[in-house]
Amino acid sequence: MDLLSIDSLSDDQIATILDEGDRWAEANRTGKPANASLAGRIVFNLFYENSTRTLMSFSVAAHRLGAQVVTLPVEHSSARKGETLEDTARTLNAMRPDALVVRHFENEAPARIAHIMDCPVINAGDGTNEHPTQALLDALTIRRRFGRIAGVKVAICGDIKHSRVARSNARLLPRLGAEVRLAGPPALLPDDFQGASDVDAAIAGADVVMMLRVQRERLEEDFGDAPGEYLARYGLTAERLKRAAPDAVVMHPGPMNRGVEIDSAAADDPERSLIPLQVEMGVAVRMACLRLLVGSAA
Amino acid sequence: MDLLSIDSLSDDQIATILDEGDRWAEANRTGKPANASLAGRIVFNLFYENSTRTLMSFSVAAHRLGAQVVTLPVEHSSARKGETLEDTARTLNAMRPDALVVRHFENEAPARIAHIMDCPVINAGDGTNEHPTQALLDALTIRRRFGRIAGVKVAICGDIKHSRVARSNARLLPRLGAEVRLAGPPALLPDDFQGASDVDAAIAGADVVMMLRVQRERLEEDFGDAPGEYLARYGLTAERLKRAAPDAVVMHPGPMNRGVEIDSAAADDPERSLIPLQVEMGVAVRMACLRLLVGSAA
Amino acid sequence: MDLLSIDSLSDDQIATILDEGDRWAEANRTGKPANASLAGRIVFNLFYENSTRTLMSFSVAAHRLGAQVVTLPVEHSSARKGETLEDTARTLNAMRPDALVVRHFENEAPARIAHIMDCPVINAGDGTNEHPTQALLDALTIRRRFGRIAGVKVAICGDIKHSRVARSNARLLPRLGAEVRLAGPPALLPDDFQGASDVDAAIAGADVVMMLRVQRERLEEDFGDAPGEYLARYGLTAERLKRAAPDAVVMHPGPMNRGVEIDSAAADDPERSLIPLQVEMGVAVRMACLRLLVGSAA
Repeated sequence: MDLLSIDSLSDDQIATILDEGDRWAEANRTGKPANASLAGRIVFNLFYENSTRTLMSFSVAAHRLGAQVVTLPVEHSSARKGETLEDTARTLNAMRPDALVVRHFENEAPARIAHIMDCPVINAGDGTNEHPTQALLDALTIRRRFGRIAGVKVAICGDIKHSRVARSNARLLPRLGAEVRLAGPPALLPDDFQGASDVDAAIAGADVVMMLRVQRERLEEDFGDAPGEYLARYGLTAERLKRAAPDAVVMHPGPMNRGVEIDSAAADDPERSLIPLQVEMGVAVRMACLRLLVGSAA
Repeated sequence: MDLLSIDSLSDDQIATILDEGDRWAEANRTGKPANASLAGRIVFNLFYENSTRTLMSFSVAAHRLGAQVVTLPVEHSSARKGETLEDTARTLNAMRPDALVVRHFENEAPARIAHIMDCPVINAGDGTNEHPTQALLDALTIRRRFGRIAGVKVAICGDIKHSRVARSNARLLPRLGAEVRLAGPPALLPDDFQGASDVDAAIAGADVVMMLRVQRERLEEDFGDAPGEYLARYGLTAERLKRAAPDAVVMHPGPMNRGVEIDSAAADDPERSLIPLQVEMGVAVRMACLRLLVGSAA
Repeated sequence: MDLLSIDSLSDDQIATILDEGDRWAEANRTGKPANASLAGRIVFNLFYENSTRTLMSFSVAAHRLGAQVVTLPVEHSSARKGETLEDTARTLNAMRPDALVVRHFENEAPARIAHIMDCPVINAGDGTNEHPTQALLDALTIRRRFGRIAGVKVAICGDIKHSRVARSNARLLPRLGAEVRLAGPPALLPDDFQGASDVDAAIAGADVVMMLRVQRERLEEDFGDAPGEYLARYGLTAERLKRAAPDAVVMHPGPMNRGVEIDSAAADDPERSLIPLQVEMGVAVRMACLRLLVGSAA
């Protein structure tokens, strides 16, 4: 079994990941040494894009379950020598890892690899397509705060067009009963986008305001050299947050561009910001995913 | 004891590595957690050249035996600060690792280090000199397929001049009774090369056709910007493979340049290509090498 | 508890680290598998500057105690994406590591992080400020050689101005009763430097001559393209070493610029050079630090 997209997961599997993730989160908070259910297992990390939090999060999750981690140093990898992704996958597969975590700049690259690998493949982000474990950790974060996901109103704002985080959340959260509203600058909306795109309208009455990172390259291209203007028109300020529900929370997949898509007052609000909780739930959800997948493969 | 070259190994040691490698290959296929005979041990990887498969293969081998792995990040290493290789070795030695795996762009660099290190040093490729664990894994791959090495006809074709893989295989395989034929473009043969150099002749009747990677730099230099011409004249095509023995197999140390030294029909032939098996045997043989060396050091 | 500077340690803590480091040094020399008192723990390495010995030394120390290590690949980190150090720390903290080892090019960066992290933070070098574990390993090295630190005369020579090693040693060694003499080229002395700066005078009668690395950039700037001149005027030659005490020893935090701040006769003197011993004590002292800090956090 692989974890390539939200749609590849059954309702039962999603429930298992969220419930088990919840338990791992509690276990990790005790500070006691972790579980050893994956002792003797080896998890490969294959990241073709820069990453801090996702790469480290999967590494920590694997170690907390007793597994070893081998990270392919992509910067001095065979990719530079002209090897195809498929040949790299065949090579890695012959080393018989117990799971392969892959991030790639091309859509569907993990799916191409999954055909080749005998072990579970986990999509840690592919192009502008999906980042399913991010959506799962976002769902668990929301559930821990509100006690439920059904009925929660989630505004996802910013560069929807290029965001795999938005795409995975837009697939997962409605399945769990949440109402998802996407909004952003017209230039950063998908070509087939339908519905309202006004950020103020999306945030109005929302329980969750999830801001997306805007790439600096895109900022310059579409908005000139004026990050402050982006913030004023589309970003999350403390002022704009007042439009949301009284107990609304702030989320962001990170890394943040402070002063661009979010201001510090919103990012650091101790009552409202769930950004560190998202990271914490990331480790917990990935522990659950590794257990589900590697357990089923054994 | 170090593993610096094929000639540094006795016949008994070679037999031990191949036999034990064979058993590890079977054990790894069970998917069960690995052996812990090197638990508490630390293996250092010191790679001055880019590597995917060798670096990961040694890391997996060490982990499967319960050892920990510390990989020196050469790209931000003291080498950049003008430290000599010998001083780096003295530093690493004082940390008392249980084994040091080294790849270096200079011939004999592992031997220079071995004088300094108290722990076993394993040559993971030095310049154009040797890559002994590659030859050992190639020998095990051949033995698993044919049930023997003695009498097997092995054609090694391509950039013989710069190939440490060819050099180690040319030293190991004849010791085990194989007939080795080297062939390649005249510009890519060693200066002291003797004998026939015709690729077609070398492949004729061969049981094993082992193609070597040709560096793109050398390709441009010696053959213009015409990879297709290299393939036609010196590469392994399905057509050329017909000259080999009826049950001939295809090997390549990777990473492959598809369409240059090998075409996809030959590389992917499910009956004949042993390329993934080579990678699998790589982990197994390196487990045996680590056990032999670290065991003897204890 | 954090280890941010020498002054952050009590006399008792310093004594504990040196005494326990001494025992780990002996244990490591047995070649037997290590202690497991940190089994199940995870140590994060966050290095914003190149490092070989410190990064590997902490990794080995953690592994010898049974901990796992996750090294943030700074070269493809969020720092490049404009994330602040504080936001990176908040992210890492939410993953709940058991210790964070940090090297940063800015003074006081570890202290800024320590406010955020719930786990112990160990300063592995911050700008030109401190490198406390280096001073601790130097102290243990001196104690092992002379049986005491009190009364030992230590000449620290070279680029005092930019040296965090000098700064930490100048804080630690006098607390332990040593006499520290700092000397170097006028251009490489701190602005508020008081006292004599003559290298020959500092070395005269010294028990320990500790030479500091001079950055090649600074060498060119301040001394033209004449490394030999630096050696002649300020470096440690066999000749200059004769001014020291009869049983004087040579130390250097590495990596060495041979022929610049030290010549090979001094660096390699088998009777006098303690440079490899410093590296060995580095692992031992860091094991003691990890135990002290992570133990107290549990």
